[in-house]
Amino acid sequence: MRDKLKLYLVTDSDILKGRDFYKCVEDALKGGVTIVQLREKKCLGKEFLEKAYRLRELTKKYNALFIINDRVDIALLVDADGVHVGQKDIPAFEVRRLIGKNKILGVSTRTLEEAVKARNDGADYLGVGAIFATNTKLDAEHVSINKLKDIQKSVDIPIVAIGGLKLDNIDMLKECNVDGYAVVSAILTADDIYNESKVWVNEIINKGC
Amino acid sequence: MRDKLKLYLVTDSDILKGRDFYKCVEDALKGGVTIVQLREKKCLGKEFLEKAYRLRELTKKYNALFIINDRVDIALLVDADGVHVGQKDIPAFEVRRLIGKNKILGVSTRTLEEAVKARNDGADYLGVGAIFATNTKLDAEHVSINKLKDIQKSVDIPIVAIGGLKLDNIDMLKECNVDGYAVVSAILTADDIYNESKVWVNEIINKGC
Ligand code: NI
Repeated sequence: MRDKLKLYLVTDSDILKGRDFYKCVEDALKGGVTIVQLREKKCLGKEFLEKAYRLRELTKKYNALFIINDRVDIALLVDADGVHVGQKDIPAFEVRRLIGKNKILGVSTRTLEEAVKARNDGADYLGVGAIFATNTKLDAEHVSINKLKDIQKSVDIPIVAIGGLKLDNIDMLKECNVDGYAVVSAILTADDIYNESKVWVNEIINKGC
Repeated sequence: MRDKLKLYLVTDSDILKGRDFYKCVEDALKGGVTIVQLREKKCLGKEFLEKAYRLRELTKKYNALFIINDRVDIALLVDADGVHVGQKDIPAFEVRRLIGKNKILGVSTRTLEEAVKARNDGADYLGVGAIFATNTKLDAEHVSINKLKDIQKSVDIPIVAIGGLKLDNIDMLKECNVDGYAVVSAILTADDIYNESKVWVNEIINKGC
């Protein structure tokens, strides 16, 4: 699982500049993202489920992992690879009760305390951020590189950095040897999503980070 | 199950005039509501789950049924008696896959076509409305008494009327012999929720409707 966290795409339907949602995600998958999280804070269950079925097929086609944000019921229906929850969603240990041992559980954390609790509650990986300022509202609170390092030292599960990551600001993350780089706008607002994903793959996978 | 649908309370946290949510629901249960649907369109999973656990205990204490709106995952975690979905939520047949045969499945319907489909997809009861104009935004579209009768003739599962029901406008519903009367503001905005519930019980249960 750890290898598959490397280039982690989180969806955001609102930043696609009118382009087709599935085409954008497929371009990112073609370009090499290794895992996709479907994150739909606005849409209701029926539409969310439809998107989840489509992305389940697309991620299978490109051999990427597929994670659902928040809605465990939808993750179960489409047989996603896992669920990702934030601090205001269903608590991690409750999610684990529903998904069993074999599905992946990711938890967003901002503090060492949250990180340790998430690990103890059954998280398989942590999303830590926002590392940098972000416009996508994924994480309002800033997490310093020092705090990221503290979490890495204290928690033995993979860590995905998230929040404002750009090709020109991830050197510090490379030095930290984070397990995954979560991107939203860096890839989804690119004019050429396929090519931008390939550039990221080259930067964080091929260069051996 | 049919008998338990009679006085059906749908929660709305926004109309309680600053009063405690749990106190309001417990007053309604003391007064005699037979089923409670937790409907929380705004709050996130953690808070929704906390409310669901509390209402699960309260409904057990007063021997009422407990239904969760929309979130099947939360219904499973708290072992609610069932799930209620609208036309924009996870489709009924998918909900049934998750909850199994023994939990109750309710579906909001406005047309004969939706009603027949919901029954065929595994619904145990239908919520039909809005019968009257409503301020709680539960159902924007109006359903006439004639359409309600058409649905009753065509669908053999219990029907709960919803939308703007008040003590002074339910005579037509009594004549239709609906199985349940769903109320939101009629009970939750009452100054004395306990007493108002008792009045409703007297009106629609004790009088033998
Ligand atoms: Ni009418």
